[in-house]
Amino acid sequence: MTQAAQIAGSVVSGPRPTTIVDAPRLSRRLGVDLVLASETLQYTGSFKFRAAYNVASNVQQAHIITASSGNFGQAIAFACSLFDKRCTVVMPATAPKIKVDAVREYGAEVDLVDVKKKGRLERLGELARQFPSAYGLATELFALGLDLDFIIAPIGGGGLTSGLVKAVERSGRKTQVIAAEPLLSNDAAESFRAGHLVSLPDESTTIADGARVLRLGDRNWEILSHGLAAVIEVTEDQIKEGVRLLFTLANLKAEPTGALALGAVLAEPARFTGKRVCCVISGGNADPALYAQLIEDI
Amino acid sequence: MTQAAQIAGSVVSGPRPTTIVDAPRLSRRLGVDLVLASETLQYTGSFKFRAAYNVASNVQQAHIITASSGNFGQAIAFACSLFDKRCTVVMPATAPKIKVDAVREYGAEVDLVDVKKKGRLERLGELARQFPSAYGLATELFALGLDLDFIIAPIGGGGLTSGLVKAVERSGRKTQVIAAEPLLSNDAAESFRAGHLVSLPDESTTIADGARVLRLGDRNWEILSHGLAAVIEVTEDQIKEGVRLLFTLANLKAEPTGALALGAVLAEPARFTGKRVCCVISGGNADPALYAQLIEDI
Repeated sequence: MTQAAQIAGSVVSGPRPTTIVDAPRLSRRLGVDLVLASETLQYTGSFKFRAAYNVASNVQQAHIITASSGNFGQAIAFACSLFDKRCTVVMPATAPKIKVDAVREYGAEVDLVDVKKKGRLERLGELARQFPSAYGLATELFALGLDLDFIIAPIGGGGLTSGLVKAVERSGRKTQVIAAEPLLSNDAAESFRAGHLVSLPDESTTIADGARVLRLGDRNWEILSHGLAAVIEVTEDQIKEGVRLLFTLANLKAEPTGALALGAVLAEPARFTGKRVCCVISGGNADPALYAQLIEDI
Repeated sequence: MTQAAQIAGSVVSGPRPTTIVDAPRLSRRLGVDLVLASETLQYTGSFKFRAAYNVASNVQQAHIITASSGNFGQAIAFACSLFDKRCTVVMPATAPKIKVDAVREYGAEVDLVDVKKKGRLERLGELARQFPSAYGLATELFALGLDLDFIIAPIGGGGLTSGLVKAVERSGRKTQVIAAEPLLSNDAAESFRAGHLVSLPDESTTIADGARVLRLGDRNWEILSHGLAAVIEVTEDQIKEGVRLLFTLANLKAEPTGALALGAVLAEPARFTGKRVCCVISGGNADPALYAQLIEDI
């Protein structure tokens, strides 16, 4: 183990359980019976650590190379440090500085590239997909005895939502899984409308940087096209309002991508009124300057 | 039960366990083997709910009147709503608007008063003191198997730290309890230097609004004067840096009072280097405009 692992004291023996926050003020404000499953306190600040830990602990390679908008990069960098593996992360030049810095701080090398014309998924490789992670998250929710009408989670490449769909199916529950997608980067919604996988021509500039992907993964689409109840397109204003509500009424620091699920409730309030809803707050690695801007006028 | 309790879905059956965050990046940055015991996700956003719940569930009165700088007010207001009791909270006119609003939102009446010349503690009554709460927090920490050299917690009236001292004493452990106090409101530090209870002449303007008290409670002083290992005086800059570090390296939204314990580590780094330290992050109800100001230049 490296210094990072040792100094954390207790050995990092795997992902930490999701943090359940039942926020009465937020529930009352929205008229929804809401619980939050927050991965903002997960190691490296997002649910991506779940997959990254599996990758680093299972693959034989001494040097792992991957690509990421930031959160998977931080996650794999830290996971590699726990297993004494060398790590290189290819990141878009547009990634928030705070995420680039964090990847470096966890001991990985960073390779910044222009992603205007090329989707990240093409370069990502298959590593993360071989090690499903969201499945564990849903299983945790059910183990807590939460009887949910809806689970809403953000969608980028589709790994989180497809994992949730599979977990719900195997549980035999009637919980509906809903994907929350930025309207500005709505390839999943377009795919559902078209009935086949649609790619966006260019990477979006949505504030939800974790969802700036051109298309779903093929295997994820197979699962989602049958198992997802809906894709809700969330405007930039609704994403921002989601960040603010999490700050004021739930004391949660979420990054914009992490607030997408709550934004989906704001986008379609009638669907959720009086229902038992779990919003997955997928990550908390917000850029400080951007975050300050979002909350200063609350 | 009122609407607030019902809409929260699962019945609120008591305080939620503290949220343990072992933040590897923060540990590494400080050179301390650090865990955070965060009460920012406690009901009503601070550890004060622990006492408030005990009060509301145990007293016979149908109408509870109390005084608070804000966090106890929110806590007792919500606790009273759970038990269908009427609640009036006397608050200083200088309390953050967000806390005043929250008290009202939880269904209590608010009575704003000028506290320039009068300490809040004189008016607070004995309600909260009859129902110790911090004891449970320390017991939770020990139950998790955390073998700590230090527990650092903010000090205002002294309820939290005296509860921690008692819990450590009964556990037979050698953990040292340390109080973190704003230098601008250092009545506890002055009391330790004098060897007797010292009152400040005027309420301080420290950014840590939860620690703006004139003096410790008498019973708390009895416990603390023998059981506390030290009081560390924390400058305003160190409090602010604590808020920033919790934001960037632990994804925690803490209010300034909640960041006092981390500020104490910044104030006396040599004391804690390489030690196993738990910082109690007592609350997260930060004013948005102030918080935005604190983080915008990170």
